Amino acid sequence: MNTRNDDEYYMRRALEEARAAARDGEIPVGAIVVDADGRIIGRGHNLTEKLRDVTAHAEMQALTAAALMLDSKYLPQATLYVTLEPCLMCAGAIGWSQLGRLVIGAADPRRGYSVLCAGSPFHPRTEVVSGVLDDECRNIIIDFFKTKR
Amino acid sequence: MNTRNDDEYYMRRALEEARAAARDGEIPVGAIVVDADGRIIGRGHNLTEKLRDVTAHAEMQALTAAALMLDSKYLPQATLYVTLEPCLMCAGAIGWSQLGRLVIGAADPRRGYSVLCAGSPFHPRTEVVSGVLDDECRNIIIDFFKTKR
Repeated sequence: MNTRNDDEYYMRRALEEARAAARDGEIPVGAIVVDADGRIIGRGHNLTEKLRDVTAHAEMQALTAAALMLDSKYLPQATLYVTLEPCLMCAGAIGWSQLGRLVIGAADPRRGYSVLCAGSPFHPRTEVVSGVLDDECRNIIIDFFKTKR
Repeated sequence: MNTRNDDEYYMRRALEEARAAARDGEIPVGAIVVDADGRIIGRGHNLTEKLRDVTAHAEMQALTAAALMLDSKYLPQATLYVTLEPCLMCAGAIGWSQLGRLVIGAADPRRGYSVLCAGSPFHPRTEVVSGVLDDECRNIIIDFFKTKR
């Protein structure tokens, strides 16, 4: 597990979630949580417009679903795949969850946690990988905003 | 509205939420959202243990409830009262909500957003007031951990 091929495989699943968001008129961000055996135990996509709830980000839903599935609020064995760099809110939630591994698609230079945090917001054991399917993850957002103009 | 007396009044309502959390064995943090007319439009207390969900902080629930009540994900006319300084996650959510005013009880020097953020995580128009019923808000947490030992 956790090879580059696996990461791309799961990031494509997160991209499917992002596409589902776009179909609903939501900014297309998707997330998947995978356990140590490679099972998908949580998924989510941005639903802030539909739910009129700023907390309804893809990562929040995927983390909550995974915690429910495992009946544990801590996820040290799990990997979260997300198509866009988490914001401060989602980074905070990832920190509380003690996530094992975080795999990010595209960077978010405006709202991403890495710009806004004074240090790492994550558990010291959380491994972070960035730039997996970077172009696809960025382009789905660029394309979404093109259709909005 | 928004005088010191009003702030103490609403912070006492937030403290009632915190006490409800303590009764459930949760770290006692409470939150209240009040609209421009002084109506309470959202409330919440920490439920992370009961729900086994790291995202179930008092502020997240109060903000989500207020947004549902107003049918708007933005809360520029609302005030959030919270007994403990928000963490990174909750500060991020407050930022997204474009909250009008944030009133904090006790500081959280370990996990509070002010320690962990590189700049303000809030909307530029969000007014922030700290230290309202500081001692009561801190002591309820100190007392909670004393009973746990």
